[in-house]
Amino acid sequence: MRHRLAILTVFLSTMVAVASAQDPLPSWNDGAAKQAIIHFVQVTTDSRNPKFVPPEKRIATFDQDGTTWVEKPFYAQLQFALARVVELAPRHPEWKTTQPFQAVLSGDKAAMAKFTMKDLETILVATHTGMTADQFSAVAKAWLANAKHKRWDRPYTDLVYEPMLEVMRYLRANGYRVYFVTGGGQAFVRTYAEKVYGVPPERVIGSALETQYTYDERGDSVLVRVPKLLLNDDKQGKPQNIYLFTGRHPTAAFGNSSGDREMLEYTQAGGGQLMMLILHDDAQREYAYGPAKGLPQSKIGTFPQSLYEEAVAKGWIVVSMKNDWRRIFAFEK
Amino acid sequence: MRHRLAILTVFLSTMVAVASAQDPLPSWNDGAAKQAIIHFVQVTTDSRNPKFVPPEKRIATFDQDGTTWVEKPFYAQLQFALARVVELAPRHPEWKTTQPFQAVLSGDKAAMAKFTMKDLETILVATHTGMTADQFSAVAKAWLANAKHKRWDRPYTDLVYEPMLEVMRYLRANGYRVYFVTGGGQAFVRTYAEKVYGVPPERVIGSALETQYTYDERGDSVLVRVPKLLLNDDKQGKPQNIYLFTGRHPTAAFGNSSGDREMLEYTQAGGGQLMMLILHDDAQREYAYGPAKGLPQSKIGTFPQSLYEEAVAKGWIVVSMKNDWRRIFAFEK
Repeated sequence: MRHRLAILTVFLSTMVAVASAQDPLPSWNDGAAKQAIIHFVQVTTDSRNPKFVPPEKRIATFDQDGTTWVEKPFYAQLQFALARVVELAPRHPEWKTTQPFQAVLSGDKAAMAKFTMKDLETILVATHTGMTADQFSAVAKAWLANAKHKRWDRPYTDLVYEPMLEVMRYLRANGYRVYFVTGGGQAFVRTYAEKVYGVPPERVIGSALETQYTYDERGDSVLVRVPKLLLNDDKQGKPQNIYLFTGRHPTAAFGNSSGDREMLEYTQAGGGQLMMLILHDDAQREYAYGPAKGLPQSKIGTFPQSLYEEAVAKGWIVVSMKNDWRRIFAFEK
Repeated sequence: MRHRLAILTVFLSTMVAVASAQDPLPSWNDGAAKQAIIHFVQVTTDSRNPKFVPPEKRIATFDQDGTTWVEKPFYAQLQFALARVVELAPRHPEWKTTQPFQAVLSGDKAAMAKFTMKDLETILVATHTGMTADQFSAVAKAWLANAKHKRWDRPYTDLVYEPMLEVMRYLRANGYRVYFVTGGGQAFVRTYAEKVYGVPPERVIGSALETQYTYDERGDSVLVRVPKLLLNDDKQGKPQNIYLFTGRHPTAAFGNSSGDREMLEYTQAGGGQLMMLILHDDAQREYAYGPAKGLPQSKIGTFPQSLYEEAVAKGWIVVSMKNDWRRIFAFEK
């Protein structure tokens, strides 16, 4: 008996060691969210399971701002646009006396806090168009290499959520093609998504401007970014563009706000098996902005009560950053 | 000496045997076009070669109609649209007396030959919209399963060019991601591209209608096809959409008409190393429609003299179907 028990003990401790060594989600605390992800991968990749998904249909879509990296106090891309205003100002002396540029150039935070969508659009157009696709890419890369988030004094690309990077890696290791489906600018996100997240440009779906086909001074063809929105990749735009880009329904989808609602609905309607929403409820380690009563509600990246109720009713998983994530950033211990 | 010669002979004949056994393009006759393709693959996949292309940048784009399958006397998709008019006619009694439907329903070939682009658009809208994305896909699949090309009395999907299938396979075997970039309807081509060409839906770029996000009677989300063109994937639309979908320049591009000119220019401008045009000059085995003088010129899929001259000036390869292809279809001996 003692002999058998010893064998059993060795066997069990080996099991635990193996399981621990192979934990694909070490930054997640044990709980319903972590278990749901692991269960999802196990059943959809097991050909004997009724929930098996053939490899060619394994697509997972991720929102970016607020789902895989920090979106507060402002989107990184908005910070980029504001920095571009300052950079381009010498070429536009009229901006000193024209809104919304004047507010940006004079650092008038009170005025900037009141910017309307129209103001933001004016700034985006002025800073994101009138150059070739390659030129824009170079400018965005240069900004990202030097810009820092004030709260952490670190590059924005350090502020990605380690638990979500683990999910992306885990899905890819199991034959999933991981896409971004972001309300942010596709061309902006493409400049760093491959390096930071392992998501190549052709798997970044995002808001996009039209381009104009023309020729440069050497006669080589170039695409020039023009101030006309072609794809608005938010809300219903997300499923529309997932269909446009992939012709498929995702098997899993991850978001954090009402801008992701339709993507999750579309995923579920197509037989998707994992719909997940990140809830920002950790003011200490990151930010807290809803939906729970008493939490500050912000204009962007909101998670309204109605979304929470839909999630509960439809079996979507709500991830508490505070409780489900053991660590948020790779630079934490 | 005789011994050495014998070894050399064995060595050389082994080389020939190996080369022959491994010929990736058996449907191609030896010649400049075949050699250009093989050379392209060799240099771009050899990391010691200055023309090496890292795997993540290996993208090859193919036009479809006239480049990888027969486009005469009409595009398959147009035949599909005409068949749909007949099928839907009972629900539209007014079509019996309304053009362009009346011409289609009465089989008035003289009137149909005079159809304007506006007429074709009217037919496409009437037959391709007002249903969900999934419903359209099912209808297109059902038509393709039964429709036949009159000249060969075979399904359209049998009329793919075996030499081009070989090129696609050869490129994929060497790490290339093969895309379609078609003026045809993306949703139509996606219904068969994976089965027929090995090109999955997410690598089919094509002309696309807008969709509307809504809910069906069960409350499940659906996308409904609406009569508004979102992407016109022809001429300058091809590089624009390659950029939109992939964020990259192709390394190789294949076309057959002036609709592909900008795609080839954009490929070359981005450092692309193989730009290829299929010339339809084989009236006996397929069709002959230009650009050589004396060949009949058609309205669609034309290869004008100016394109031929640009190809020669820029080092693009023009493939003669008559001389470069040993066989055209898989069903030929």
